[in-house]
Amino acid sequence: MSKLENVPFDELEVGRKETYQKTVSEEDIVLFARVSGDVNPVHLDAEFAKTTMFGERIAHGMFTAGLISAALAMKMPGPGSIYLGQTLKFRAPVKIGDTLTVHIECTGKRDEKAIATFSTTVKNQDDKVVVTGEATALVPRDKVIVDAAPMPDIRIV
Amino acid sequence: MSKLENVPFDELEVGRKETYQKTVSEEDIVLFARVSGDVNPVHLDAEFAKTTMFGERIAHGMFTAGLISAALAMKMPGPGSIYLGQTLKFRAPVKIGDTLTVHIECTGKRDEKAIATFSTTVKNQDDKVVVTGEATALVPRDKVIVDAAPMPDIRIV
Repeated sequence: MSKLENVPFDELEVGRKETYQKTVSEEDIVLFARVSGDVNPVHLDAEFAKTTMFGERIAHGMFTAGLISAALAMKMPGPGSIYLGQTLKFRAPVKIGDTLTVHIECTGKRDEKAIATFSTTVKNQDDKVVVTGEATALVPRDKVIVDAAPMPDIRIV
Repeated sequence: MSKLENVPFDELEVGRKETYQKTVSEEDIVLFARVSGDVNPVHLDAEFAKTTMFGERIAHGMFTAGLISAALAMKMPGPGSIYLGQTLKFRAPVKIGDTLTVHIECTGKRDEKAIATFSTTVKNQDDKVVVTGEATALVPRDKVIVDAAPMPDIRIV
């Protein structure tokens, strides 16, 4: 079982960076439609999507935001942190097969409350920025190491 | 097949409100873990979650944000709109069985660019606010009516 390890508040330096990568599959879009309830055909219907300005199916914007949240929860500040806020600007569409890299960087710390801010930028395989924003989190002062839960196995029927 | 119908920019009045409701299932949390990759045990491991400040498994914050995006995409401004941005403050945990209601209200319009802003507030069944924020979207000037795609059927194996 793999371990998830946090960056405790005192070890978190402004300028520290982490990345998190995922290639977008058709399954991801289908699962996000199911979990959010957003069944707009631009996400799910290839024929319809051809008629739109995008020319093909696009991922839900908030799917990409989910990758930012995963980067924060798994990499930095990691387990035990409390997600307080996030701003998001959706800058370019994300398509099936795109490889997205979430770049997070610690941009500030408020010592008295153990709150940190992070710039959050997601780029695709062409280095095009698809989402930008800023995250705020409450960061444990102690070391936290937990067992990652097994990745759920899903079948689309 | 059900239809999704937009609110064209000229029909969108500041103060107009819509809601979108969903009861959070264990399946939702599992699917969100899968699609985001965030397998922190506070979301997936009931025994571990008992040891945390939450006392039980909690939904990923960005799952709730996904419901906001669904409300915007399906209800107001609806299909054809382009999601430009979202701010989010995560104010209280969301647990399995909670019934969440997304409240969206048009708060401003910029005529020259057909951009509208919306307050976005999510409350649980006890009327407790769990997420607040503001959305920005580009709104079609024309009427858009599309066929909703069928809700995908998923099995967790």
